[in-house]
Amino acid sequence: MIRFASDYTEGAHPSILAALTKTNYEQNPGYGEDPHCARAAQLIRKACDTPNASIHFLVGGTQTNTIVISSLLKPYQGALCPESGHINVHETGSVEATGHKILPLPAKDGKITAEQVRKACDAHRNDASFEHIVQPGLVYISHPTEYGTLYTLQELTDLSAVCRQYGLPLFLDGARLGYGLASPETDVTLPDIARLCDVFYIGGTKVGALFGEAVVFSTPELATNFRYMIKRGGGMLAKGWLLGIQFETLFENGLYFDLGKNAVTLAYRIRDAFREKGISFIMESPTNQQFPILNNEQLEKLSREFSFTPWETVDAEHSAVRFCTSWATGEEQVEKLLRAIRSL
Amino acid sequence: MIRFASDYTEGAHPSILAALTKTNYEQNPGYGEDPHCARAAQLIRKACDTPNASIHFLVGGTQTNTIVISSLLKPYQGALCPESGHINVHETGSVEATGHKILPLPAKDGKITAEQVRKACDAHRNDASFEHIVQPGLVYISHPTEYGTLYTLQELTDLSAVCRQYGLPLFLDGARLGYGLASPETDVTLPDIARLCDVFYIGGTKVGALFGEAVVFSTPELATNFRYMIKRGGGMLAKGWLLGIQFETLFENGLYFDLGKNAVTLAYRIRDAFREKGISFIMESPTNQQFPILNNEQLEKLSREFSFTPWETVDAEHSAVRFCTSWATGEEQVEKLLRAIRSL
Amino acid sequence: MIRFASDYTEGAHPSILAALTKTNYEQNPGYGEDPHCARAAQLIRKACDTPNASIHFLVGGTQTNTIVISSLLKPYQGALCPESGHINVHETGSVEATGHKILPLPAKDGKITAEQVRKACDAHRNDASFEHIVQPGLVYISHPTEYGTLYTLQELTDLSAVCRQYGLPLFLDGARLGYGLASPETDVTLPDIARLCDVFYIGGTKVGALFGEAVVFSTPELATNFRYMIKRGGGMLAKGWLLGIQFETLFENGLYFDLGKNAVTLAYRIRDAFREKGISFIMESPTNQQFPILNNEQLEKLSREFSFTPWETVDAEHSAVRFCTSWATGEEQVEKLLRAIRSL
Amino acid sequence: MIRFASDYTEGAHPSILAALTKTNYEQNPGYGEDPHCARAAQLIRKACDTPNASIHFLVGGTQTNTIVISSLLKPYQGALCPESGHINVHETGSVEATGHKILPLPAKDGKITAEQVRKACDAHRNDASFEHIVQPGLVYISHPTEYGTLYTLQELTDLSAVCRQYGLPLFLDGARLGYGLASPETDVTLPDIARLCDVFYIGGTKVGALFGEAVVFSTPELATNFRYMIKRGGGMLAKGWLLGIQFETLFENGLYFDLGKNAVTLAYRIRDAFREKGISFIMESPTNQQFPILNNEQLEKLSREFSFTPWETVDAEHSAVRFCTSWATGEEQVEKLLRAIRSL
Repeated sequence: MIRFASDYTEGAHPSILAALTKTNYEQNPGYGEDPHCARAAQLIRKACDTPNASIHFLVGGTQTNTIVISSLLKPYQGALCPESGHINVHETGSVEATGHKILPLPAKDGKITAEQVRKACDAHRNDASFEHIVQPGLVYISHPTEYGTLYTLQELTDLSAVCRQYGLPLFLDGARLGYGLASPETDVTLPDIARLCDVFYIGGTKVGALFGEAVVFSTPELATNFRYMIKRGGGMLAKGWLLGIQFETLFENGLYFDLGKNAVTLAYRIRDAFREKGISFIMESPTNQQFPILNNEQLEKLSREFSFTPWETVDAEHSAVRFCTSWATGEEQVEKLLRAIRSL
Repeated sequence: MIRFASDYTEGAHPSILAALTKTNYEQNPGYGEDPHCARAAQLIRKACDTPNASIHFLVGGTQTNTIVISSLLKPYQGALCPESGHINVHETGSVEATGHKILPLPAKDGKITAEQVRKACDAHRNDASFEHIVQPGLVYISHPTEYGTLYTLQELTDLSAVCRQYGLPLFLDGARLGYGLASPETDVTLPDIARLCDVFYIGGTKVGALFGEAVVFSTPELATNFRYMIKRGGGMLAKGWLLGIQFETLFENGLYFDLGKNAVTLAYRIRDAFREKGISFIMESPTNQQFPILNNEQLEKLSREFSFTPWETVDAEHSAVRFCTSWATGEEQVEKLLRAIRSL
Repeated sequence: MIRFASDYTEGAHPSILAALTKTNYEQNPGYGEDPHCARAAQLIRKACDTPNASIHFLVGGTQTNTIVISSLLKPYQGALCPESGHINVHETGSVEATGHKILPLPAKDGKITAEQVRKACDAHRNDASFEHIVQPGLVYISHPTEYGTLYTLQELTDLSAVCRQYGLPLFLDGARLGYGLASPETDVTLPDIARLCDVFYIGGTKVGALFGEAVVFSTPELATNFRYMIKRGGGMLAKGWLLGIQFETLFENGLYFDLGKNAVTLAYRIRDAFREKGISFIMESPTNQQFPILNNEQLEKLSREFSFTPWETVDAEHSAVRFCTSWATGEEQVEKLLRAIRSL
Repeated sequence: MIRFASDYTEGAHPSILAALTKTNYEQNPGYGEDPHCARAAQLIRKACDTPNASIHFLVGGTQTNTIVISSLLKPYQGALCPESGHINVHETGSVEATGHKILPLPAKDGKITAEQVRKACDAHRNDASFEHIVQPGLVYISHPTEYGTLYTLQELTDLSAVCRQYGLPLFLDGARLGYGLASPETDVTLPDIARLCDVFYIGGTKVGALFGEAVVFSTPELATNFRYMIKRGGGMLAKGWLLGIQFETLFENGLYFDLGKNAVTLAYRIRDAFREKGISFIMESPTNQQFPILNNEQLEKLSREFSFTPWETVDAEHSAVRFCTSWATGEEQVEKLLRAIRSL
């Protein structure tokens, strides 16, 4: 069984294991106050072109989303969010557990528009009962989205502008950011994201690390006392340097970007194979996740050798499924899948 | 600089890194539903002599304490706890963040007694205004405590009995459990703990793992839907098998117990050296943490080569400090320290 | 200016003020443990035909909803709710403030169906990632709804059946229950509600009391330790007998039902006047709230003498507005409004 | 049975009931946005000599404490508080329910000192692990305290100074403020409190009102968006004018101060009677609560005709009890008690 079910089915890029092994008996101070974290932060600031960013390393995505969001909102505020956003659907109410409502907006391909944000804010302000309604306090988006789609530079610029006009921090969930930056179809760079968002995170778990997410506050004032929040939220790793070492490795020689490219290149080959077979997709994804619509026979055949994720039932005969590639996906694995697709 | 400041200054036992490296390209399902977690749980059940225990792997201590406690309490209940308990003093209000008051009891050497628990419960029940007061809902202890001390089997048996009489789950924080079990002065075994507590955790972070804590519900009914709680609390590691592999390694051939012994043996040598020098301790610790009282000159001298933790000021001339050994402490490092102590 | 903007623009029925005045110097124990609360509870049990119900008196609706819901849910559970439900839109995230997600379902005229609840529960149970998703833990409905509409006995019976099948308590927000029970178009009685719901409240604030809501747990096991929850939620009135006296008065001789009838009768006269004028409604409401669609000229004219609530913009020329009657509405006030409508 | 058990055993001063009756059919906008609340706020601003104070009316004390505190603190902050403070012992964890730890300080006669606050803040700032510890975020005191004692002007001035130096809002719980201001032994006036505290509340429930507490933000910037917090906390009374009318009545002609005086004068007569009998007190209280130490025979005798509150057991033969007077206590009731005391 070859797994294309998700992009977190293997451990870490070998150079990360090597770095952990090499430094294993180094003695480091705990809780992220070590030279590796400092250096990793410096490498990330450089890659983001944000010399003043405040950078923090956390273990996982749900934890990161919840701690960041609860640190930015006042108690009576909520997070505007695409209705398909991860925080709204797949984090077991983690944000609500901190006392905040998520304010979902109808999403198209996992994305929301500046115009939707503007309307939501205006609706709140113009409502005579505004004090009886949760106040929009920030905007959460993911890039790539949960559907593998990407914001264009123009869309992101517009979102950023409306957020700044209304005083809402813009928070970008970059759990798969490496795959977004590596897409041949994107016009968005890491410095663009740092410039247009107030906070975002660079996902390591799904892009080459054993685990770890690097939170970047490009508006550093928003990070005041964030370390208290990390500890309170159960997100402060005792051996924080394990995160530092991983992100050092990922950002030292552009490895993070290379890993992204590998995954997307292979995903495109899978996409092309489905296309050649006349198989359509529920949505065009320019990144490492692909969502072909298979008929039951095709689905059954591919299931014999490959694992992938059921996504949605289209009709009695057809289902959309998700195939993921990742930093770990090998040429050979993909070749096997391509052969299987071609022989459908 | 040789660090004796804490027991989490190095990475992991080499066999753990080896296991992670060996399995790196294995494809595993996520979120702890993989064969390594299953096998690690099985090994732990065996070591605990609790064939029905429900076992879960989390990343760190604060996270574990908070998720376990918030899963056990009703909203109007609190956690009875030694006033020096970690949850009360060093977790930035993480338990309170879930809506629960901690109910501190005066502690002696970091410990509370069955009698204190009984009195607290009776006081609550007999108070005419009981509904205006947070109801005791569980008992939290740590073993070893934050001061390195240990409950005796009798003390633990008494605590367990009063907890069961009053219907309060007994939760034992075992962040340093390995060092407690390895003490030559303890009469408490792992099966004792499993039998007498309703929930406890076996700390990995401080005892040989890169990170990770194994939560053991020896009363498995209390774990119903605990996985929802883990996810909600931001504690569900995407690559859950990383935890499984580490605990497999620690419990496969008794490594966990061996690592504990190494640390305690070396701590005793340090203790003896201080004693021989006529230096006293703020408290007798039978585990890997030692708390000698140094005069300012001694403190200054030892600081040149070694890092250790300031604990409390005794008087203008003396301070108590903490020296920790760990699974990673080497003979050679201890020898250097012993020489320095002797030459004070 | 005559106010038809809401049904809480006046104080209380005169007999309530009289009862408060008469008992003013009585000395009562506090916090609802007084003879008036006991007697009011008894009268309500009788009216509900639920001899074993556990009954509690709270001050206001948001408080009641939040305390009831947070007492019923486990931390990882949420409340299924019509998307237009009061808790979802007009309580400033009060439920989320207790750590729980609201799970909105598309509503028709403010109502949801048994089938929707079944589908939501099945979808949760059948999702492979169910532990990553908030679990439905109860069903919240309002009756009358925020749009003045009512569930039929059949609809309520079906909702109740599906809730019991799936083990979800059914909670009915009866802020305006008196106006629902008094509708000539309803086939639902108070005993029906008590029988089909597990918890509900009988609204006093909007139906004749100065303030106060009577929570009825017809499934009394769900009320265990509810008084702790009331206190914790800031809802325990020191002079609890003030609530007891009000509900005694309302339920002593059927006053609650009479007040409901007065309001609905007058609302129907307003409805008929609009209808006669050819003015349509955004929805048929069989209770004390009416939602005519006025053109701008009509709206402007009526605004001169009457206050009413803007509801929604229909098009550039038309808006829906809300007219409420209440226990306090007088014949004369309605006559003035009727004349104004007729002369539009 | 004559009740001296608490100061909330009767309804309200007759002039309040008269005002409610007189205005009963007035139509008012809801939620505190009515002319009575506006005028009551104006009267209070004048009495406090704080022309810019932001004033809000809530229903009860626990609610007020919780909403104020949770609106002032950041998530990782806690409230410094005398260990005997009401929020710490008699509000069922209501503050913790909003995610905040209470940081209790040892109290003498219910009070804490400026020096204690300074030390707590310094200890936090100087702790190397400060980010692992809840940060002091405000100071809560009550005046009178739960023991009927009062801060002197000097004590309050010192507390205020240290709070301002450390940037902590000073919040005074004035549930019984009227009885404190009326004490012949105090040198603290209402304008002093308004000048020295950042927020405080003027208790109505225990001092002449049916219910209600007036929150005064003498530092009005702290009240930004406080109305959202009131609604979210379930504290926004639909018929807000009921609170406005009560505080209008209490502050129109100094009634609030007169009611305080009546209670304290009568309390002093009771105190003197006990003293004359040679009965001592667990603490000197200059307000309406008195805590004599009775022997079992005395206790039994007085219990026949009077209710009072058990406070603490002194020894097998003696108990301290609490006698309260209030705005409602009559000369005649006190005369009966005096006779009973004299005949002990």
